[in-house]
Amino acid sequence: MKQELINLRKRMKEERIDAYLIMTDDYHGSEYVGDYFKCRQYISGFSGSAGTLLITDDHAGLWTDGRYFLQAERELDNTGITLYRSGQPGVPTLEKYLENHLEKGQTLGFDGRCVMADYAAGLDEIIQKKEAILRSDVDLVGDIWTERPTLSGEPVWELEEAYAGMTRKTKISRIRDILKEKSADWFLLASLEDIAWTLNVRGNDVECTPVVLSYLLMSKEKVIWYVQEECLSCALRAKLEKDGIEIKEYNTVFDAVRQLTAGHSILYDSAHVNAALYKCIPANIRKIDEINPTLLLKAVKNPVEVENERIAHIRDGVAVTRFIYWLKTRVGKEQITECSAAEYLEKLRMEQEHYVEPSFYPIIAYKEHGAIVHYSPDARTDVPLQPEGFVLADTGGHYLEGTTDITRTVALGNLTREEKELYTTVLRGHIHLSMARFLHGCTGVSLDGLARTPLWEKGYDYNHGTGHGVGYLLSVHEGPNSFRYRPSVRRGNDCVLEEGMITSNEPGVYLEGKFGIRLENMIVCVKDTENGYGRFLRFEPLTMVPFDLDAIIPEQMSEKEIRWLNAYHKKVYETIAPRLNEQEAEWLKEATREVGV
Amino acid sequence: MKQELINLRKRMKEERIDAYLIMTDDYHGSEYVGDYFKCRQYISGFSGSAGTLLITDDHAGLWTDGRYFLQAERELDNTGITLYRSGQPGVPTLEKYLENHLEKGQTLGFDGRCVMADYAAGLDEIIQKKEAILRSDVDLVGDIWTERPTLSGEPVWELEEAYAGMTRKTKISRIRDILKEKSADWFLLASLEDIAWTLNVRGNDVECTPVVLSYLLMSKEKVIWYVQEECLSCALRAKLEKDGIEIKEYNTVFDAVRQLTAGHSILYDSAHVNAALYKCIPANIRKIDEINPTLLLKAVKNPVEVENERIAHIRDGVAVTRFIYWLKTRVGKEQITECSAAEYLEKLRMEQEHYVEPSFYPIIAYKEHGAIVHYSPDARTDVPLQPEGFVLADTGGHYLEGTTDITRTVALGNLTREEKELYTTVLRGHIHLSMARFLHGCTGVSLDGLARTPLWEKGYDYNHGTGHGVGYLLSVHEGPNSFRYRPSVRRGNDCVLEEGMITSNEPGVYLEGKFGIRLENMIVCVKDTENGYGRFLRFEPLTMVPFDLDAIIPEQMSEKEIRWLNAYHKKVYETIAPRLNEQEAEWLKEATREVGV
Repeated sequence: MKQELINLRKRMKEERIDAYLIMTDDYHGSEYVGDYFKCRQYISGFSGSAGTLLITDDHAGLWTDGRYFLQAERELDNTGITLYRSGQPGVPTLEKYLENHLEKGQTLGFDGRCVMADYAAGLDEIIQKKEAILRSDVDLVGDIWTERPTLSGEPVWELEEAYAGMTRKTKISRIRDILKEKSADWFLLASLEDIAWTLNVRGNDVECTPVVLSYLLMSKEKVIWYVQEECLSCALRAKLEKDGIEIKEYNTVFDAVRQLTAGHSILYDSAHVNAALYKCIPANIRKIDEINPTLLLKAVKNPVEVENERIAHIRDGVAVTRFIYWLKTRVGKEQITECSAAEYLEKLRMEQEHYVEPSFYPIIAYKEHGAIVHYSPDARTDVPLQPEGFVLADTGGHYLEGTTDITRTVALGNLTREEKELYTTVLRGHIHLSMARFLHGCTGVSLDGLARTPLWEKGYDYNHGTGHGVGYLLSVHEGPNSFRYRPSVRRGNDCVLEEGMITSNEPGVYLEGKFGIRLENMIVCVKDTENGYGRFLRFEPLTMVPFDLDAIIPEQMSEKEIRWLNAYHKKVYETIAPRLNEQEAEWLKEATREVGV
Repeated sequence: MKQELINLRKRMKEERIDAYLIMTDDYHGSEYVGDYFKCRQYISGFSGSAGTLLITDDHAGLWTDGRYFLQAERELDNTGITLYRSGQPGVPTLEKYLENHLEKGQTLGFDGRCVMADYAAGLDEIIQKKEAILRSDVDLVGDIWTERPTLSGEPVWELEEAYAGMTRKTKISRIRDILKEKSADWFLLASLEDIAWTLNVRGNDVECTPVVLSYLLMSKEKVIWYVQEECLSCALRAKLEKDGIEIKEYNTVFDAVRQLTAGHSILYDSAHVNAALYKCIPANIRKIDEINPTLLLKAVKNPVEVENERIAHIRDGVAVTRFIYWLKTRVGKEQITECSAAEYLEKLRMEQEHYVEPSFYPIIAYKEHGAIVHYSPDARTDVPLQPEGFVLADTGGHYLEGTTDITRTVALGNLTREEKELYTTVLRGHIHLSMARFLHGCTGVSLDGLARTPLWEKGYDYNHGTGHGVGYLLSVHEGPNSFRYRPSVRRGNDCVLEEGMITSNEPGVYLEGKFGIRLENMIVCVKDTENGYGRFLRFEPLTMVPFDLDAIIPEQMSEKEIRWLNAYHKKVYETIAPRLNEQEAEWLKEATREVGV
């Protein structure tokens, strides 16, 4: 048994806590979290990005989903921790387990700052039902974690208006219009991407997401930013204060919320405000629990952001096109592995102007690794690339001009008939969604089927959404826009698609033990015509990288699909070739050649 | 000013009611209502199927939607009643109007039996906000309506198991399983279709919907049916009682609900329980406001119902095919009008075995009338059919074997290029949805786009859903399944499509002042293959009537679309021809000829 687990149980006993819950969230419910917050990994050793640990005196269970079953089995081996495979038949949910095992008078403990208010409300119901006791003010892992990394406090920098496209004063004024509509006196914002967007600031407190640990409290007169003050330069601080933003120390937000004036109302999103902060809201304050109004404002990219994204995607297109050229010409001639290829691509991106950092951990997945949807190579799994079969490359970068996310599946040599047929089928789905022309009012649910139909006709599917929103130099996974065929259970998702929204279009197919194919462009929603039937919208691809003509069977494509592909390739060539060297440009010309209809 | 309105205002004054609300609902929130319930029409003269009247001392307003603007203008002329065109820019909603005009201390009145509980709750909020008074126990129209038709009390008849496919005891037991899951002691069911389905009874109390005015109250031990007792034969009563169903007089349900045991819980759907009955639920009863569990049970047709529906559609297909043959061969040779054509089709249906009645008012719409989506011909609008252009025929019937709903648009002679192009486009959309193969988990929202895409590509649309669920010898419009591209605001709609659900597939296009095209089959959801990706589903057409080959441009259709059409026509010919006379069969052979790909 791990010593950390033994130490934790000792602390539990001291505090008379019978069950201790450790989630994955930081104080803000971020998708990725800084090292300071990796308590679950510290106690269990499990390093996946999703998983919840429940410790009692005589039992320890880790709940995680299908993406991480194999990894969790390996990492939990010999720890004495039981793996609960969420969603598998007969496996109780954590909540069900708790309900079955917590006894009257027992105490459940967790760090209320790392559990979001909506989830904590569900736990509270169980506590009530079982007549148990809740303690959400304890950080027992913090107590025993002697070598705990410090809370990240990286310098904050400003995203200039040339990149953001809208001043923070304008953004604040738009938010205030919404607060007025909703009769909300206060707005408590804890989602880091939304704060960064509102204030036109960026930081480095979370991997792959350039945000700043902070909270924002706003009324019609005030904007107060609770942030680690030492992270701000004097110049930036002065600039923010000039724009009417008060700066206060990060942790003082709790007291500020406690002291809100009786009778006022406060708007917040219980999925993004932690339970500890939520508990500070006085009982005499009217609560308006809604999705953050910033979510939709941020998702609809302004014209400057859209034009910048085009620039970012040209730079990224140059890097990825060079990468594919390199793969096509070097694999089989020199030693290239998944990891070394990922490094090479990162080097190519770093050569590009205004490149900041990767927008997520790169997926370079050769052959059967491509069938593992969330595969990311490391020293343990790395394999050399051979001149045959597919390599799937899903990578992305942050630039000052925006964020990219692109997947290409590249034929490194001979392909089987099955590989070509499925590549063609996935590409057809990708093209169908790209070509869509639709009326305003459609959500991603209305359009997802376009991408899936070619696969469904053949009895295939992919067990993930067709696309997700993408932030502007923020999180690469951003709501509320998405493409999925099942309505989302998450509040505010499945929103109506609006002009300016940027979404990924990434159908795929995965044959376990054989290969995976995924083809992903980022697409921006633009206005088409408007007539008596309404306002028609369509998509334009932002991504500028060729698909692999070595992998398609043109006879299985319709004339319309081929025409789309030819037009796209023509644009890729015209845009990217002038930025390549002679051999690369020559290669790209051939790679984007016209396919006969 | 109408005398009825003057009389109503006099009664309002006597009762000290400042604003009186008259909705369209009967006591059960039915889609169509019996004559007894047509209070709004009695006072205003407006006979549309949707509209709400609000009367004050010095103002009278009628709110209705786009389907009825023209009709309401005509019918309200010289009544002193102002028409509020719902949804038009600048037009306040009724609720907004009420909020703006109701003053502190004033009284709003309505008959709480004719306003559903969920809507009444919204009105109550306005009343609270304005510090006004609510009286929902008055039927002022009833007080002054001297010649009011009597409440319908038609004989109840039993739908035998050979038609229903499942005994009432089995149905009750399934409902009880759900009540147990939801910890509901009682279930209050007021939706007439759901009651008829549960008890395997039918009646004739509502036009076009063979249901019985009644309420049902159910617990794990009891099933009590509140119905006009004189409508039941002794034999049927005995049979029901033998199955454990207590029969009590219709109106005693109010007292029964008042006397529910304290501490019990009750499940009901506030959209289908009227406000007066809802008010009877004691405060010490736990309320579970959810969609009726019968809604989904009823929508998933059992195998007997599905096989019966196939039989009903063959009979209906014979009638409609004969009708089209008659149109094609007789128009221009004899005097045929929209109304006479509707009568002729009804005569053809009546010749079919087990025909009961029309499932809705027939739409026979010639030329520009076809562009009015809810057109139904009457003596005032009737026109003769000429041997040119389109006639749109949207009709349906109830049979013991089920309910039909079919639209065909028929070329009566020469067509313009535009007419042919749009017919072909609508047909392509219809075929795309018909051919869909999809994973279990899809809702109608995920598939609707398949039907619309061909039109959207050309900048056209139709301002209605692509399809609605259809009841089995019940309402022709039945939830919760449907095809629409915008998520529904109605609770429980946009359900996952299940094997056995029957839905219409009816894309269209409407050019105002010119013509309308709609092509509608009923389709049943059936199982396709099941594999590692999940359970695939597809549709089979129930409707067996040819599309009009005179109206298509085959060069604008893909090979796949033509193959679907040829296969469908082959099946129609093989199924229907043996049931026709020689000339009709000869004609059908030509009408279903193979189109070259």
